[in-house]
Amino acid sequence: MPQSPATAADLGLMVGSPPDPSQLVTTASWQEGPKNRWAFQHVGELVPSAVVSRGTGPVLPLASAPEDLAEITLDGVECGATLEAFLQETYTDGFLVLRDGEILCERYFNGMEPTTRHLLMSVSKSLCGVLVGGLVESGAVDLGATVSTYVPELWDSAYGDATVSQLLDMTVSLAFSEDYADPDSDVQTQDRAAGWRPRRIEDPEGSHAFLRSLRRRSAHGRTFQYCSATTDALAWVLERATGRRYPDILTDELWSRIGAEHDAFVTVDEAGFASANGGVSVSLRDLARFGYLVLNGGSVGTHRACSPAWAAHIRAGADVKLMRETDFGQEFPEGSYCAQWWITGGETSAFEGRGIYGQFLWIDPVADIVIVKLSSLPKALDPIVTRDHQRAFASIAAALA
Amino acid sequence: MPQSPATAADLGLMVGSPPDPSQLVTTASWQEGPKNRWAFQHVGELVPSAVVSRGTGPVLPLASAPEDLAEITLDGVECGATLEAFLQETYTDGFLVLRDGEILCERYFNGMEPTTRHLLMSVSKSLCGVLVGGLVESGAVDLGATVSTYVPELWDSAYGDATVSQLLDMTVSLAFSEDYADPDSDVQTQDRAAGWRPRRIEDPEGSHAFLRSLRRRSAHGRTFQYCSATTDALAWVLERATGRRYPDILTDELWSRIGAEHDAFVTVDEAGFASANGGVSVSLRDLARFGYLVLNGGSVGTHRACSPAWAAHIRAGADVKLMRETDFGQEFPEGSYCAQWWITGGETSAFEGRGIYGQFLWIDPVADIVIVKLSSLPKALDPIVTRDHQRAFASIAAALA
Repeated sequence: MPQSPATAADLGLMVGSPPDPSQLVTTASWQEGPKNRWAFQHVGELVPSAVVSRGTGPVLPLASAPEDLAEITLDGVECGATLEAFLQETYTDGFLVLRDGEILCERYFNGMEPTTRHLLMSVSKSLCGVLVGGLVESGAVDLGATVSTYVPELWDSAYGDATVSQLLDMTVSLAFSEDYADPDSDVQTQDRAAGWRPRRIEDPEGSHAFLRSLRRRSAHGRTFQYCSATTDALAWVLERATGRRYPDILTDELWSRIGAEHDAFVTVDEAGFASANGGVSVSLRDLARFGYLVLNGGSVGTHRACSPAWAAHIRAGADVKLMRETDFGQEFPEGSYCAQWWITGGETSAFEGRGIYGQFLWIDPVADIVIVKLSSLPKALDPIVTRDHQRAFASIAAALA
Repeated sequence: MPQSPATAADLGLMVGSPPDPSQLVTTASWQEGPKNRWAFQHVGELVPSAVVSRGTGPVLPLASAPEDLAEITLDGVECGATLEAFLQETYTDGFLVLRDGEILCERYFNGMEPTTRHLLMSVSKSLCGVLVGGLVESGAVDLGATVSTYVPELWDSAYGDATVSQLLDMTVSLAFSEDYADPDSDVQTQDRAAGWRPRRIEDPEGSHAFLRSLRRRSAHGRTFQYCSATTDALAWVLERATGRRYPDILTDELWSRIGAEHDAFVTVDEAGFASANGGVSVSLRDLARFGYLVLNGGSVGTHRACSPAWAAHIRAGADVKLMRETDFGQEFPEGSYCAQWWITGGETSAFEGRGIYGQFLWIDPVADIVIVKLSSLPKALDPIVTRDHQRAFASIAAALA
């Protein structure tokens, strides 16, 4: 039997009234394992959060067509030779495989349930990248305009002369450390500004001040630079372009239109600014619904995530030269990052949203499947584990093809 | 035309990215008017909150049978001579009248919508008082046991030798100031411990430490003493008795059973301890559903809030001598406080949950109606305004009888 990691219940996290200090989950401890086993299903208890309403429309129905996938063999995967072993060993909380609107496999672990909203981390970005399509098509947002056209306060930051399009595809060049494990990195400063970690006295006061503090490294538009702050800068542009708050934009433009079963949540800082880059929590099935719409050209029946043109734009990807020279070039030699999605450039043209600690929304247009995996891995990033996820998804798709 | 108070939108609260400091709503400013016009519909954005799931069952249907109640004359009400004027003048956010499962009137103001979850303040207590019935009947909670049987840490506090029954009916005698407007009052210290206001260096660390710090005034059981801390002590007992957290108790014992349309939320402190006394937010219709079940003997069809016996127990009220000598004796000469409900002792045997800043769940068994009013009044308490609400509800009931 594969070894299963300890669950939140096994660890007694937040058990007791009050919990023992060793079992307490706080803003200082929630992201890393093992505290994240509890935290990723309870983010609103740690960081103030806005409701992203599902609205009042009908739910997009998903039929159940269970297949026994547990013994699928995963090619070249170190963390588990079969799907069952892989799910157990990679700290899975929720896992779902959808084909043509039918749920082939829906699994919950570690106390997660169909009603649980689980943190998406950077899969949140891919929601943003889809909803922006409608705003571009309506003329509310001009991809060719500079960021400072919308947000004059960002004029003397790294973002001032970047275009909205460069934000969207992450080709803004910044002096920025996205090292999740380094307390002195920019991305941890971003966390503290957003209320995700305890503040330090010298920190910028909130996310807006943090974004204004960022400086340019070299010319924009020449290479892909994955940077979580860039998505928040994009959200700031969207707020100014629409006169609405990001939680409301996310509700109006996306979540109330896709036939979601549950409200989503998004964390907010002290000024009410949402963490568009990573703060969204949704239920397992709702993330699958969203993926299904994107796979299906943006809509299914009356449920809509974006236009067919925007869905095609995402799937087509960006210029492959942009990623080739980066740290991601080895993983995706033909890949790109387009509209906040990872385009793998692999044989099956799979594309995905992905987030640290094991969050994945994988879409394979050839096999016509969507795979959702929500996890609470102990480390933010582990190259072997990330690679194993890609190989596992490809193996599942191949087995189902 | 009656004068309508400024809405959150009129005031531009939390508008702008970031909002102007004068329009920012923070933990230091959210409870009082006018900031509460925005805050009471967005509490989870200010105070970390747990989800109280509606579960996956069917919604209790409410038929629509609109009646034109706007011009009902309200006897002896200073704030508005007609219902319409009264609703406008008393900072109403949501208002609903239900008779025999039919919605006679459903009104939204100040940006509130059917999907909005609005803070209940002390109407939260009445939810607790209903769900405890099932725990008593199953034997999980013994009303006759002392508090320290369940929570030994409370032994040397005011609560140590009080019985659970005395918590439930609020006849614990404490040295406690429930002055909502006084920054040095115990109830504001409670707020700070619960994360509802910015901490002071000398404050107890969290709600548990706050409850342990409270001292007895005189003998318990002799008189009614309305005290928000007492409900939190009750919630602590329930957590120890069940081994579950209060948000889960509220979900399991109540919210997933009543046919709610929307999840509820409850604020939590840094140890994850919920503000059972006042931190619950629910939608307008869901509060009406809850009231309908209580009015109807605890259940409607398969939807259930409590047993017929517990519903009858609440409605029967407690010993009227307990309230007579208190500040509330003048308002309710025949009234009592029973299981976290106000029993008016009036001609129609109306009983209610009520919370500061204008939250009311009014049940009139003679007229067979439930009235819900959720508001964002500028002051926590105003005797004239409170009295006007009671008179308004009685007038509506009389007009419909």
